Amino acid sequence: MVGDPVTEARRLAPRFAARAGASDRDGGFPVDDFADLRAAGLFGLMVPAALGGAGAGFRTYAETAYELARGNGATALVFNMHASVTGALGAVTPELAEALGLPDEAIAARDGYLRAAAAGSWYAVAMSERGAGSRLSQLSTVYEPVDGGYHLKGSKTFCSGAGHADAYLVAARSVTDQAVVSQFLVPAGDGLTVEPTWDALGMRATGSHDLHVDATVPQGALLGGVEGLALVVAQLMPHWMVASYAAVYVGVAQSAVDAAVAHVRERRLTGLPAVRARIGRADAAVAAARLAVFEAARRVDEAPGDPETNQWVWRAKLLAGTTAAEVAASMLEAAGTSAMRRGHPLERLYRDARAGSLQPATSDVCADWLGVEALGGDPDSDGSAPRW
Amino acid sequence: MVGDPVTEARRLAPRFAARAGASDRDGGFPVDDFADLRAAGLFGLMVPAALGGAGAGFRTYAETAYELARGNGATALVFNMHASVTGALGAVTPELAEALGLPDEAIAARDGYLRAAAAGSWYAVAMSERGAGSRLSQLSTVYEPVDGGYHLKGSKTFCSGAGHADAYLVAARSVTDQAVVSQFLVPAGDGLTVEPTWDALGMRATGSHDLHVDATVPQGALLGGVEGLALVVAQLMPHWMVASYAAVYVGVAQSAVDAAVAHVRERRLTGLPAVRARIGRADAAVAAARLAVFEAARRVDEAPGDPETNQWVWRAKLLAGTTAAEVAASMLEAAGTSAMRRGHPLERLYRDARAGSLQPATSDVCADWLGVEALGGDPDSDGSAPRW
Amino acid sequence: MVGDPVTEARRLAPRFAARAGASDRDGGFPVDDFADLRAAGLFGLMVPAALGGAGAGFRTYAETAYELARGNGATALVFNMHASVTGALGAVTPELAEALGLPDEAIAARDGYLRAAAAGSWYAVAMSERGAGSRLSQLSTVYEPVDGGYHLKGSKTFCSGAGHADAYLVAARSVTDQAVVSQFLVPAGDGLTVEPTWDALGMRATGSHDLHVDATVPQGALLGGVEGLALVVAQLMPHWMVASYAAVYVGVAQSAVDAAVAHVRERRLTGLPAVRARIGRADAAVAAARLAVFEAARRVDEAPGDPETNQWVWRAKLLAGTTAAEVAASMLEAAGTSAMRRGHPLERLYRDARAGSLQPATSDVCADWLGVEALGGDPDSDGSAPRW
Amino acid sequence: MVGDPVTEARRLAPRFAARAGASDRDGGFPVDDFADLRAAGLFGLMVPAALGGAGAGFRTYAETAYELARGNGATALVFNMHASVTGALGAVTPELAEALGLPDEAIAARDGYLRAAAAGSWYAVAMSERGAGSRLSQLSTVYEPVDGGYHLKGSKTFCSGAGHADAYLVAARSVTDQAVVSQFLVPAGDGLTVEPTWDALGMRATGSHDLHVDATVPQGALLGGVEGLALVVAQLMPHWMVASYAAVYVGVAQSAVDAAVAHVRERRLTGLPAVRARIGRADAAVAAARLAVFEAARRVDEAPGDPETNQWVWRAKLLAGTTAAEVAASMLEAAGTSAMRRGHPLERLYRDARAGSLQPATSDVCADWLGVEALGGDPDSDGSAPRW
Repeated sequence: MVGDPVTEARRLAPRFAARAGASDRDGGFPVDDFADLRAAGLFGLMVPAALGGAGAGFRTYAETAYELARGNGATALVFNMHASVTGALGAVTPELAEALGLPDEAIAARDGYLRAAAAGSWYAVAMSERGAGSRLSQLSTVYEPVDGGYHLKGSKTFCSGAGHADAYLVAARSVTDQAVVSQFLVPAGDGLTVEPTWDALGMRATGSHDLHVDATVPQGALLGGVEGLALVVAQLMPHWMVASYAAVYVGVAQSAVDAAVAHVRERRLTGLPAVRARIGRADAAVAAARLAVFEAARRVDEAPGDPETNQWVWRAKLLAGTTAAEVAASMLEAAGTSAMRRGHPLERLYRDARAGSLQPATSDVCADWLGVEALGGDPDSDGSAPRW
Repeated sequence: MVGDPVTEARRLAPRFAARAGASDRDGGFPVDDFADLRAAGLFGLMVPAALGGAGAGFRTYAETAYELARGNGATALVFNMHASVTGALGAVTPELAEALGLPDEAIAARDGYLRAAAAGSWYAVAMSERGAGSRLSQLSTVYEPVDGGYHLKGSKTFCSGAGHADAYLVAARSVTDQAVVSQFLVPAGDGLTVEPTWDALGMRATGSHDLHVDATVPQGALLGGVEGLALVVAQLMPHWMVASYAAVYVGVAQSAVDAAVAHVRERRLTGLPAVRARIGRADAAVAAARLAVFEAARRVDEAPGDPETNQWVWRAKLLAGTTAAEVAASMLEAAGTSAMRRGHPLERLYRDARAGSLQPATSDVCADWLGVEALGGDPDSDGSAPRW
Repeated sequence: MVGDPVTEARRLAPRFAARAGASDRDGGFPVDDFADLRAAGLFGLMVPAALGGAGAGFRTYAETAYELARGNGATALVFNMHASVTGALGAVTPELAEALGLPDEAIAARDGYLRAAAAGSWYAVAMSERGAGSRLSQLSTVYEPVDGGYHLKGSKTFCSGAGHADAYLVAARSVTDQAVVSQFLVPAGDGLTVEPTWDALGMRATGSHDLHVDATVPQGALLGGVEGLALVVAQLMPHWMVASYAAVYVGVAQSAVDAAVAHVRERRLTGLPAVRARIGRADAAVAAARLAVFEAARRVDEAPGDPETNQWVWRAKLLAGTTAAEVAASMLEAAGTSAMRRGHPLERLYRDARAGSLQPATSDVCADWLGVEALGGDPDSDGSAPRW
Repeated sequence: MVGDPVTEARRLAPRFAARAGASDRDGGFPVDDFADLRAAGLFGLMVPAALGGAGAGFRTYAETAYELARGNGATALVFNMHASVTGALGAVTPELAEALGLPDEAIAARDGYLRAAAAGSWYAVAMSERGAGSRLSQLSTVYEPVDGGYHLKGSKTFCSGAGHADAYLVAARSVTDQAVVSQFLVPAGDGLTVEPTWDALGMRATGSHDLHVDATVPQGALLGGVEGLALVVAQLMPHWMVASYAAVYVGVAQSAVDAAVAHVRERRLTGLPAVRARIGRADAAVAAARLAVFEAARRVDEAPGDPETNQWVWRAKLLAGTTAAEVAASMLEAAGTSAMRRGHPLERLYRDARAGSLQPATSDVCADWLGVEALGGDPDSDGSAPRW
């Protein structure tokens, strides 16, 4: 790690911002941003210090992601996936490993993945599937044991960073027992085919293409070394499933406010009362959402898995998603027609911001989860809509 | 006119819809849509029957534009410009002509333009300028009398249909008297240069490029034959300045509801309560906005220029703009991430819909205008923000 | 009928407004307003001309109710109940009577009730029950045949006008067959006990007390003369169940805008941009809701029971309820702290307006109904929440 | 101080809640609540420890006020006035006293007022006037020097706790120099007449009556001992002018969520998706507003007067006011008609919550302030609306 990660992220953000328009236009992957992230040592952000990383907690992750997203939300979103993988792997303490009955070799393999990340590798996530969304219980990708390891077969969608990552976390169901869902870290290369399907409204530079998997991996690729851990991890670490996006979307929202302020000042429209009111309300909304995201992150560090922590995690996701979309729409209205031209930051931010509420857990699912929780039900199972 | 214009528009809409994705993607002008409009006789919609047209009123225009916009909002928006020119020209009755002191030759010229429209010509509007927006009082394009006519020089922006129209309504200030703003109909050809600047968030197929004017026109090109009528027209026919867009954006909003319904049914998500609530609220909001637009249009026909009519005109614009943006955003949220892919109708409609509130008069200006009116002030002059 | 009912209502509204503060404060029934209504002949509004009434349609009812509500929403709300009873009775045509197999004596009895209304009697509705709400399928009030008629026993709640009406429409279930729900017109007097429970946030002058029923009625009191018609009527005339309130709440909303305008002008706050924006947006919102209510009413007259008519009925209820609450809240904010004093019209209107979305069908139920309808389901049976 | 103030407040809240309905109904002052506050030593909350108080900072104040408001918002609002007076007095450090040139006798007098508060006295604020609102620059109450002190004359409005406080902070203008506004602490008794005008929509138990002042006070009653400090204090300590209410309204909002949850559970409506969505969204909104209020308070303690601190102060006020009103309105809609009955907590909370945005600085003024600040202007002077 070159320096304090939040400071590093702040330093990189203007560089990302300068490139954001081009990669948005072409839907190209922000390879230069990722070279910057590697050079700054940020791939090791969530890697424990003992394994060569920065050993950051979730709060530091959230602040880092927020700052990166002020530069380019798409870059921050892909980075978030890597942080999720390394963060979840790094969060498995010896105590937890023992409680889950993880074999020593799995811990050793895990350490290797984390050391590699600290040394500059980064990982993508291949979880969602057409039809199943990100619900683990609905996956059709399967694996079966083969000599010396496992064979995985299936097709994934929305795999951010596809074709650029060094390895991919792939969720799959056991071919012999449909209820067993496991996660594997599959290295880039043979057996993985990227189908360039990602061409979307917003967050265009994430390269969230389809990934076809037909690969054989060694025993050590089974994360945790025990089958069936995927749902356990989702329940133990909902922050990585639900709220790690949140910091990104608050960064996008703040960026929209900043872009509107710059535009309005440049156009000398600061005297218009309606413009001031829009910017004032947006400023307050973004500030509140940011606090909520950082508070959730602080609690994840202090009391991971605590019911109140989880409640904050879902609040953070809901507030970030709704705030980003509303703020970006209002800021475009404050800036006026000239900000609708492609190449104007607000034109991109308006599209990027809309994605927040739609990424799982969607805003509507978050609201339902929080309502069930407040009413004393079990929010992970009692909802109007499926959670995972 | 082949048939009833609203029926014709309904017939054309699916054809437009089938082409909308392609012209949105490339920002190409919907030439085939315009060929269809011509073939259906819709260029003569606002032309009095005596001059070969359909002699439609504003209400019929609004219904026609609404139906066209359900196919492609961008096509309807360009058509709206042509309707504005022909509608305003056609609305000059002999009585009004006498009251304004319009010379007979100007009426004859006007009749010629309208006959040409009925025969298949269409006109664009070149009014806005960078910095001035659509405010007539701020224009920098100038004209001066020359032998046999006028010379016009200046640069226009947001000229929908630039490069495709048969003639352009150009607003310009007298070089000798800055307070005198006149309108000319400048034929396509020498003296007009299209600079392809239009590459925008939404309504991408309107071809609203910059238009550089350095042209000499004959006497008859001065609309009305008398200088200084531009502001008079704006005040006499605010519906063409303020509300003719409104029908287009309600069409876009309805199209978003329809697309969400189709998507949700196809994906078998009709059982999700949050989705149903979003669609139910959107259905009601669009229905109310549509009523308001048609009510405003009805009153324009019955009592043009009446204070209450004008109030409805501004209400229609406000409701259409805000409803379109809110509904499209909510429908995308109802449909989910898969609707964010480029090529999905909702992906385009979300971008198209955002333009409504931003087009002049913006939603914020409309709210101010209506507030001043309700409070007993003069809404055309007392506002917090300039009107024209 | 003294004159045109809408004109009469407009004439009475200022009188109602002058008394509204006092009856709101004490929760007293607006007896003087009802004397005015009687004197103006408005109790016969929905009575066919052949039976001595004005023979108004639903559209005229809606306009009348809107105007009355601009004076006092509570008075209009009680009047709406009477209009519902007489309107539903009056809407039973000979053809419908034959189709439903209604005996002649029942028609004769019905004619008597309507003639009495035209002569100055008015009727209240005793349908809701604690726990059951207004859902007919959940009622616990029962009736059983006795010599010469029926005996009814049960307790009703939210009976607007309790203690003041001349007769009460009471819904009850057959003691022998729980699926059979019938409606009776029970005259004031023995067997009806008013328990003064109504002391509510808003609409305080409706006297919507509890009504305990332990009464024997003659055969002719069974409306229609056939048991089990209650649900049939609800499905045949959803406008009287769902949308007759809507006009009242739009009247309340318009009254809030008017009160804010008067307050702001008197306080010389017309120059504040935020105040103007609030009033401008409220003006447009109320205008749109009013259009929707009148459009629904027009369609009820033209095509009663038509699916599209019913869709408009539910839209009208949703728009009226949500608009009233939002507008009243914003108008209070526009007017400022001094409008919070009791006795200020906005103080009352803010409370009255909140009731709209809560009265059945609630706004949330309306949204669900409309969503199911738009998605092609059966909105009367497929919802997330029970309808009746 | 009996114990930790936040714990004490939490202990008292249920007692306040049990009495809240009665004092709301009658508009009676919550004398028992104030006896509890005295007994708990909370009148000394903001008094420095050296003078016998708890020496709390603004963050502790905010948490205390939030907890008290969960019991009764009106009680917390009056307490907030006392906290403002003692907090502002207690915040005058020796360094600040020297910088402002405050004479020693004034410091001694100040110490006496604070010691009295620690011993159980409490103070109200008489600042607002009809027509002037709370803007110091518009006051018509005047003072003039008389032998041994000053004579004050004028009429105040919205004086919370009038008739119950031990002394009143009265703002007045110098009769000789209209630009000089000073503040006096006027003891209860001769010269102060309470006119019972407070009878309002919400916060009915604050006893915010008119106070007529015609009193002679000794020299020591001039706070600071120097004339003209009122505006200085307002600018130095905007948190006491702008944001001390904020914690109260977040407490009211949380109380509305709690009341809705209790109601919905009791009525067994937890299965309704629309109810769950409302409660989930409200839970998140209140949580975010509470964070913002506490963050503002933390910064007031850490960096009082800092531009960023002040920005948080205005954000806190805006978020608290808007959130309280929106949440209470939605919770009433979630609970349904039965919660509209007087005596139901939601009925009161809906009215109490509306006051937040209207109390100065109003939400619209806050939005303007924040917009000007974000745009780089001077938010205290550049606004669309007067600040003080």
